[in-house]
Amino acid sequence: MIIDSHGHTSAPAEVYLYQSKLIASRGYPIQNPPKLSDDLLETSLQKHIALLDEVGTDLQLISPRPYQMMHSIGPGTIVHKWTSYVNDIIARQVKLHPDRFAGVAGLPQVPGEPIENCLPELERAVKELGMVGLLINPDPMEGGHPQAPGLGDEYWYPLYEKMVELDVPALIHSASCCSPRVSYTLHFINEESIAIMSLLDNKVFEKFPKLKIIVGHSGGAIPYQVGRFRAWRIRKNESDFDTDLKKLYFETCNYSKESLELLFKVIGPDNVLFGTEKPGTASAKDPKTGLWMDDLKPVVESIDFLTEEDKKKIFEGNAKKLYNLNRVNSFMAL
Amino acid sequence: MIIDSHGHTSAPAEVYLYQSKLIASRGYPIQNPPKLSDDLLETSLQKHIALLDEVGTDLQLISPRPYQMMHSIGPGTIVHKWTSYVNDIIARQVKLHPDRFAGVAGLPQVPGEPIENCLPELERAVKELGMVGLLINPDPMEGGHPQAPGLGDEYWYPLYEKMVELDVPALIHSASCCSPRVSYTLHFINEESIAIMSLLDNKVFEKFPKLKIIVGHSGGAIPYQVGRFRAWRIRKNESDFDTDLKKLYFETCNYSKESLELLFKVIGPDNVLFGTEKPGTASAKDPKTGLWMDDLKPVVESIDFLTEEDKKKIFEGNAKKLYNLNRVNSFMAL
Repeated sequence: MIIDSHGHTSAPAEVYLYQSKLIASRGYPIQNPPKLSDDLLETSLQKHIALLDEVGTDLQLISPRPYQMMHSIGPGTIVHKWTSYVNDIIARQVKLHPDRFAGVAGLPQVPGEPIENCLPELERAVKELGMVGLLINPDPMEGGHPQAPGLGDEYWYPLYEKMVELDVPALIHSASCCSPRVSYTLHFINEESIAIMSLLDNKVFEKFPKLKIIVGHSGGAIPYQVGRFRAWRIRKNESDFDTDLKKLYFETCNYSKESLELLFKVIGPDNVLFGTEKPGTASAKDPKTGLWMDDLKPVVESIDFLTEEDKKKIFEGNAKKLYNLNRVNSFMAL
Repeated sequence: MIIDSHGHTSAPAEVYLYQSKLIASRGYPIQNPPKLSDDLLETSLQKHIALLDEVGTDLQLISPRPYQMMHSIGPGTIVHKWTSYVNDIIARQVKLHPDRFAGVAGLPQVPGEPIENCLPELERAVKELGMVGLLINPDPMEGGHPQAPGLGDEYWYPLYEKMVELDVPALIHSASCCSPRVSYTLHFINEESIAIMSLLDNKVFEKFPKLKIIVGHSGGAIPYQVGRFRAWRIRKNESDFDTDLKKLYFETCNYSKESLELLFKVIGPDNVLFGTEKPGTASAKDPKTGLWMDDLKPVVESIDFLTEEDKKKIFEGNAKKLYNLNRVNSFMAL
C-alpha cells in the first residue's frame, strides 16, 4: 500500500471565492459560506484522484493548501472562519472517498493570539470530522514582524499537550510569506530548518516524549547541513545531534534522488514517510525524462541501499505507526 | 597547494574591547582605535596558523568574523568605524604572513543607507590594503525589520558595478541574527538560500555577466532542495535552474561527506572552492573519530567520483581563477 503523507486539498474556485469575500469584507459583516454540492466538489477531486492513480498512490493525507491559509491576514475572525470552512470541505472530500483520502486539519493560527484559541477547532476536527492530524505553521506572521515564538517556546505547550491527548501528529508546514525577498516556497524550507533547531535546542521532547512531529519537505536545510549542527553540539558539550534528530519524522517531498539518498543516510528509514505533495509544486514533467517530477515512488524504489523492509516502512508502515488511520473508518461509521 | 577560501580573522581581545567601547559610547564621542603591536596580533595568529598547519592548509582567505560585524547596531557611524578598523587589522595580519593569508574585506553595511556608502571602504580595502575580495551580508538588518531588498534588487547594482570594475569576488555571508527564534549560525544558511534565489530569479547575471559571487556554507539549502526549484522553473516555463546555478560559485564549508558528495553532484567541480572556516563553527573533534570536523581536505580527497584534476581545481585552481591572489604580492611590494 502506498500512503502519501503530504497532500493538499484540491477545491473548486467557489471555495476561494468565499475566501476572497471574507478578506474583502474584513469579516464585518461576516460572510456565511456557500453551500457547495457534492458534484461540484467531485469535479476537482476526480482530477486529483486521476493524478494519484497515475503514480500508484493508494491513500493520501490531505490538508489545507498552505499558501492559502492566510494566517497573517486580519482580522482574526476571518482566519477562524476560513479555517473551519476549509476543514469542513476536506472532511466532506474524505467522506466522498474514504478509501483514497484522510484529513489533516488546518489550525486558525492568528498572530498575537494565544495558541489555546486553536484548540477548539483542532478538537472539533479530530472528534467531529474524523481528521487524523494537523498542520502547524511555525510562522503565522508569514515572514512579517513581530515573529511568533520558536516552536521550542512554552507558547506552544498547550497545543503539544492537546496533540498528545488526542494522539494526532503534526506536519510542520508554513504558509505564505509577506517578505518581498522570499517566495512562499522557499519560506517553507527556511521555516522547517528553524522549526527543527528550535524544537531540538529547547528540549520539547523531554517535556512531551509522546509528541509526534513530521517536518515537511525533507527537513528544510538540516539534513544537508547536519555536519554544522553536529559540530556545534560537540563544541558546546551538548547532546548528540543525530540522536535528537531521530525524535522527529520527515517525509520525502524533495524532488531529487541524490537528496533523498542523503535524507535516508542521515535520518534512516524508520523516521521517513513517503510524501509527494501531488498535485503541487513539482507537478511538472521533466523535459529530459518526460516523467512527473513529483512521481517519487520509482525514485524511492530505485535507491539501492534501502531494503524491501525499509521501503515498506517508508511507503506504508511509518505512516500507519504515526497516524491513526482507523479514525477515518470510525468517522464513516458515524 | 591548498587554498582555504573561507576563513575569518583571529584577533586579540583588545580588538573587541574597542568594539565594545564603540557600541557603549554610541559613537559620540567617537572612540579612536587602540594601537596594537605586531606582537599582540601575532599571539592570535600563531594559534591560527598552527591549526592551518595541522590540516595542511597553505593559504587562507580571511575576512571579518561575521557574527561580530554588527551591521544592525546603530548608529551607522560606529559600523563604518568598526569595519575600517577590522579591515586594517586584517591587512596587517596579511602583511605579517603574506605567504599564509590573503585579505577579504568587510563592508560597512548600514540598514537604510544606500549601498553606495560602502564603496569608498571597498575601494580603499582593494587599492590601499591589497584585499582580494569582500563579504556581502544580504541582510544587514540581521533578522530584524524592515528587511533589505533581496540581492536581485537594483539597490545592490552600484556594488556589483564596483566589484566588476575592481575585479573582486564576493562571498555571501550574513552576520548576526536578532530574532530570538534563529541562531546566527542557522541564519547564515537561510540567508544563503534567499540570496541564491533572489540573484537567479532576478537576472543579475544578465546585467553583470562578469560578476563573481561565491555562496558560503555550500549554498544553504539549495543544492539539497534543488528538485523543488527545478520543478518550479519548469512549471513556469522559465530558464533551466541547473544552468543558472552554475553562474554562482560555492565552497565546501559544510561538514559532512554525504553532503559534499551531493554538492559536487549538483554543482560540479568547476564551481566549488575548498573552504573550511577553520578555526570556527566546526573546530570540534568528532568523539567517534578523534578528527577535527573542519578538517575537510581528507574528506574531499576521499570522494571517489572526483578525479585528480577535479580535486586540484577545488583545492587551488578555482580560487586562483576567481581571486587575483597576486594582489597580495603587489601590495607587499608597496
